[in-house]
Amino acid sequence: MMFTRRKIAVIGAGHTGATAALLLAQKELGDIVLLDIPELENPAKGKALDLQQTAPLGHFHARITGTARYEDIKGADMVLITAGVARKPGMSRDDLVSTNAAIMESVAKQVSTFAPDSCILVLSNPVDAMTYVCFRKTGFPKHRVMGQSGVLDTARFNTFVAEELGVAVEDISGFVLGGHGDEMVPLIRYSYAGGIPLEKLLQPARLQAIVERTRKGGGEIVSLLGNGSAYYAPAAALVEMAEAILKDKKRILPAIAYLEGEYGLSGLYMGVPTILGGNGIEKILELPLTEAEQEALHRSAQSVRDVLRLVN
Amino acid sequence: MMFTRRKIAVIGAGHTGATAALLLAQKELGDIVLLDIPELENPAKGKALDLQQTAPLGHFHARITGTARYEDIKGADMVLITAGVARKPGMSRDDLVSTNAAIMESVAKQVSTFAPDSCILVLSNPVDAMTYVCFRKTGFPKHRVMGQSGVLDTARFNTFVAEELGVAVEDISGFVLGGHGDEMVPLIRYSYAGGIPLEKLLQPARLQAIVERTRKGGGEIVSLLGNGSAYYAPAAALVEMAEAILKDKKRILPAIAYLEGEYGLSGLYMGVPTILGGNGIEKILELPLTEAEQEALHRSAQSVRDVLRLVN
Amino acid sequence: MMFTRRKIAVIGAGHTGATAALLLAQKELGDIVLLDIPELENPAKGKALDLQQTAPLGHFHARITGTARYEDIKGADMVLITAGVARKPGMSRDDLVSTNAAIMESVAKQVSTFAPDSCILVLSNPVDAMTYVCFRKTGFPKHRVMGQSGVLDTARFNTFVAEELGVAVEDISGFVLGGHGDEMVPLIRYSYAGGIPLEKLLQPARLQAIVERTRKGGGEIVSLLGNGSAYYAPAAALVEMAEAILKDKKRILPAIAYLEGEYGLSGLYMGVPTILGGNGIEKILELPLTEAEQEALHRSAQSVRDVLRLVN
Amino acid sequence: MMFTRRKIAVIGAGHTGATAALLLAQKELGDIVLLDIPELENPAKGKALDLQQTAPLGHFHARITGTARYEDIKGADMVLITAGVARKPGMSRDDLVSTNAAIMESVAKQVSTFAPDSCILVLSNPVDAMTYVCFRKTGFPKHRVMGQSGVLDTARFNTFVAEELGVAVEDISGFVLGGHGDEMVPLIRYSYAGGIPLEKLLQPARLQAIVERTRKGGGEIVSLLGNGSAYYAPAAALVEMAEAILKDKKRILPAIAYLEGEYGLSGLYMGVPTILGGNGIEKILELPLTEAEQEALHRSAQSVRDVLRLVN
Repeated sequence: MMFTRRKIAVIGAGHTGATAALLLAQKELGDIVLLDIPELENPAKGKALDLQQTAPLGHFHARITGTARYEDIKGADMVLITAGVARKPGMSRDDLVSTNAAIMESVAKQVSTFAPDSCILVLSNPVDAMTYVCFRKTGFPKHRVMGQSGVLDTARFNTFVAEELGVAVEDISGFVLGGHGDEMVPLIRYSYAGGIPLEKLLQPARLQAIVERTRKGGGEIVSLLGNGSAYYAPAAALVEMAEAILKDKKRILPAIAYLEGEYGLSGLYMGVPTILGGNGIEKILELPLTEAEQEALHRSAQSVRDVLRLVN
Repeated sequence: MMFTRRKIAVIGAGHTGATAALLLAQKELGDIVLLDIPELENPAKGKALDLQQTAPLGHFHARITGTARYEDIKGADMVLITAGVARKPGMSRDDLVSTNAAIMESVAKQVSTFAPDSCILVLSNPVDAMTYVCFRKTGFPKHRVMGQSGVLDTARFNTFVAEELGVAVEDISGFVLGGHGDEMVPLIRYSYAGGIPLEKLLQPARLQAIVERTRKGGGEIVSLLGNGSAYYAPAAALVEMAEAILKDKKRILPAIAYLEGEYGLSGLYMGVPTILGGNGIEKILELPLTEAEQEALHRSAQSVRDVLRLVN
Repeated sequence: MMFTRRKIAVIGAGHTGATAALLLAQKELGDIVLLDIPELENPAKGKALDLQQTAPLGHFHARITGTARYEDIKGADMVLITAGVARKPGMSRDDLVSTNAAIMESVAKQVSTFAPDSCILVLSNPVDAMTYVCFRKTGFPKHRVMGQSGVLDTARFNTFVAEELGVAVEDISGFVLGGHGDEMVPLIRYSYAGGIPLEKLLQPARLQAIVERTRKGGGEIVSLLGNGSAYYAPAAALVEMAEAILKDKKRILPAIAYLEGEYGLSGLYMGVPTILGGNGIEKILELPLTEAEQEALHRSAQSVRDVLRLVN
Repeated sequence: MMFTRRKIAVIGAGHTGATAALLLAQKELGDIVLLDIPELENPAKGKALDLQQTAPLGHFHARITGTARYEDIKGADMVLITAGVARKPGMSRDDLVSTNAAIMESVAKQVSTFAPDSCILVLSNPVDAMTYVCFRKTGFPKHRVMGQSGVLDTARFNTFVAEELGVAVEDISGFVLGGHGDEMVPLIRYSYAGGIPLEKLLQPARLQAIVERTRKGGGEIVSLLGNGSAYYAPAAALVEMAEAILKDKKRILPAIAYLEGEYGLSGLYMGVPTILGGNGIEKILELPLTEAEQEALHRSAQSVRDVLRLVN
């Protein structure tokens, strides 16, 4: 066979996993195996079948299957991990940590067995810590294990700015560092509308309000839904990263990456600007920060470390 | 303003409605108002916000809002109705009828008030009957009220045939008439793979098994999911019809249309081949049927009428 | 008829016009009338027919016709003007001016007769002057007549920067003002890679070399082709603007706009950042410039005025 | 590197080759090397540069380069051959044969040297003979060397039928066998609109007129253009086949394939229905023909052989 499609495993067949499967299939990035625990194998199969029947209508070509058997992800090129307990209203991100760390440990073991050469993208919460757990438990090199937070935070920030300014969101370009959500460190001075620094277009108080709304962006949707958390934009963010890597695009995107001295931080996973290409995280971009930014980043790192302590 | 985007209302912000909103937005068919009952206004808003934040990642441009106020659909060009109680495992399609007819009646009244010039596409179950209720209660002309079933049934049939033959689903072309699901009347002799009649490629027993699986296609997914019914392919089917109309494509697609003598049937809504274009159902295509087909179609019609009796 | 497709006229069925027709059709922005002079009516028809036959393969839906009769653009919503003599190797942009002004005058008269409510996008060279001629001769309000140069110049600049940095071009965001090509005024300080100012990533000499290459970007391709000028990226740039307007996107894009005091300039058309939406040029964004930038912009304006003098 | 993009060589940087490069890039099927003879190296580079600058506007990611050096196609996964002298008005397809056979011989030798594992798609005219020459001169196995004619002929036929019936072309499905153009053998009984046999929808005389117009479809455009031949739909047809193979779609598409007994023919390349997937031509579908069809096919084969005699 001269040409075969890539194989992408999506671990966790909840709303986020199934939405990621749809978006991956629409982009024809590969065949998709949607995996969940044995108790949820049938729903995984049901969603996969429903998605498969969408192909002739969506004009995409991909094989989408549901399973609970890790053997079925054998040889996967890429693995998106969305598994984990969802955040409930009022639940802190930290509350999730022990449960989800145990889940991640089990997933990581299986992935390293059945897809030992894969590139892993983590979305499970709390994502900075879960990515770290995945890295440790798979033993994969750091360029092949990363997490998503900044792409989503930026999408939310850009959406709010676009609405405020009344312009197209595709012309807004925000920039964030650090942990996800509350721990996010926005770099306003690197944020623009049509190339024009936002600081020239919006009053500081308005900008600050948007930053705050972005920080609480996940919680806002959790509160509205009443039951469950956001999944469309999170899945799309994950797929944006997957596409950058699978198509070797060398995109400049924020990713949760393993730091070894960058930004004066070591031994933890945290959101930083990276170059995502065919080799996964090909580079971490180190920007000169102001003192206030550096301080905020280190506070963010401390908060990530506080969570990490719970999983070690 | 020289150019404005279309306005599309999606009634019912459950999985199907929200998925339809995503697909409509990806195709940039218009701005979307996702409406649900007051008790579910916040989830509708939450899904709309999540979808809105997907726009910068999905590279689409649309305004997506959630609401429980029908005033917000004012002037909508098109209305997709997905509202209604979902079919539960073991529940017959007919069991849904009274509850959903009451819901439809209320929706129809509001739509005729706030979007009196709109084109309505119905997906609520049992869809043949619900489309009829919508037609009666809005008082809209028949070309502006239709239901979806055959596009989905065909997508499922094509998916199963493609898998059986090991070829691309885009080259499979099935053909169905009649009611949805169990009441479907497949026209095998008008079904092809790459233009080759399926009867020349598959044994009758295999073909019949695929027809049966298609008939039970909704139920298969209901059983697998355990909780709820299919929504990806149903939403995609609805959007396929919406696109054909909004872009005035003159597509030949099955639609649930009001019959006034076609196929020897009158005074009911049922699935028939139509031409969908800028004027909604622009034509019903009347094909010569074999005696067996005609008989099956009339049995299907009888079954639709049996349900209709419950709503009159 | 509830829904009809938009009608877009493309004046000039050369390479640029035909490529624009393809891109418009692929995006399903409307039906396309490809118009050329009577001597070139058959080639216009031939290209339109070839494009029409591409639709089933490209999965787009649009009616594409060729003509030499202006009656056929009757009621067009948008008109893209690519007509004019092409720049030959060694020929200055200014040499084109008298010939093309006469052509533009004739086109403008016909467009104002047959598509009096249309929005006009001009690509004919020298584009700043030709847009002005079109504005004067149609008598259309200024928000409905604009020219393309900055979108293309930016695409070229971004391409060169992406290649230099080895990153994805979609993450590069350049910014230009002023006249097209040689007269371009790049705002390097508003140009970024992944949000990081280019000045922090590239040496001044490298940046300057890229600016110079961008200025001569049209000429570089003219020299390589030996016969004719670039048409893929120019057509794509034009279609980017058309899409922003037809979909009412409120994009922040450079456009050749009529100035009435903005940037201290009046009575001429020149490239400035604008908001493009359903009403055409909805706003000109006036940025504070450094003294050097202001000076360069006024030199650019002077050069545009020198050409204008030839057409008055 | 975990993931790299495919490499696709397009031999011949004329209108068809450059258009194919655009379409391949838009679909992100791989990086593209556009190759022409040394005298046309600069135009090839100019078109490649213009196309590369289109990427940020068309939102596609691909590296597009122009060259005259075959070393630059080293390791190409797929090779599209569009090289050859174009048909001029009044020129018979057969007149082209000697010139183009010599060109093909030279191309084939280079491709077998620099891209020995590639899959080759031929568009050069007369295409049945040129594909044969390519097969012989590369010595590649038959599943990796094929030609395009039926996909284009079908697109033309479908376009004419859609226009005649006033319905969407995506719902028309024609079927052709045999040589290209004049030698085409249409299978009307396998041609449909929305699944309905065309014979039930159109009078025999109308259908016959459409068949005749399809046969002369290339000539119609040659006559209109006055200078050169169709290139949009031919390029799109070639890319349709390329995509089916690169994405391992198992599409049922007509291809010019090497026959070894199928349809009672051996030792020549001719248009037949095939399955195109990751292994190139994975299967030839042999349909039972009527006597008249079989006769027409053999006449077509004779005509292909008459041309072949000129190249042996």
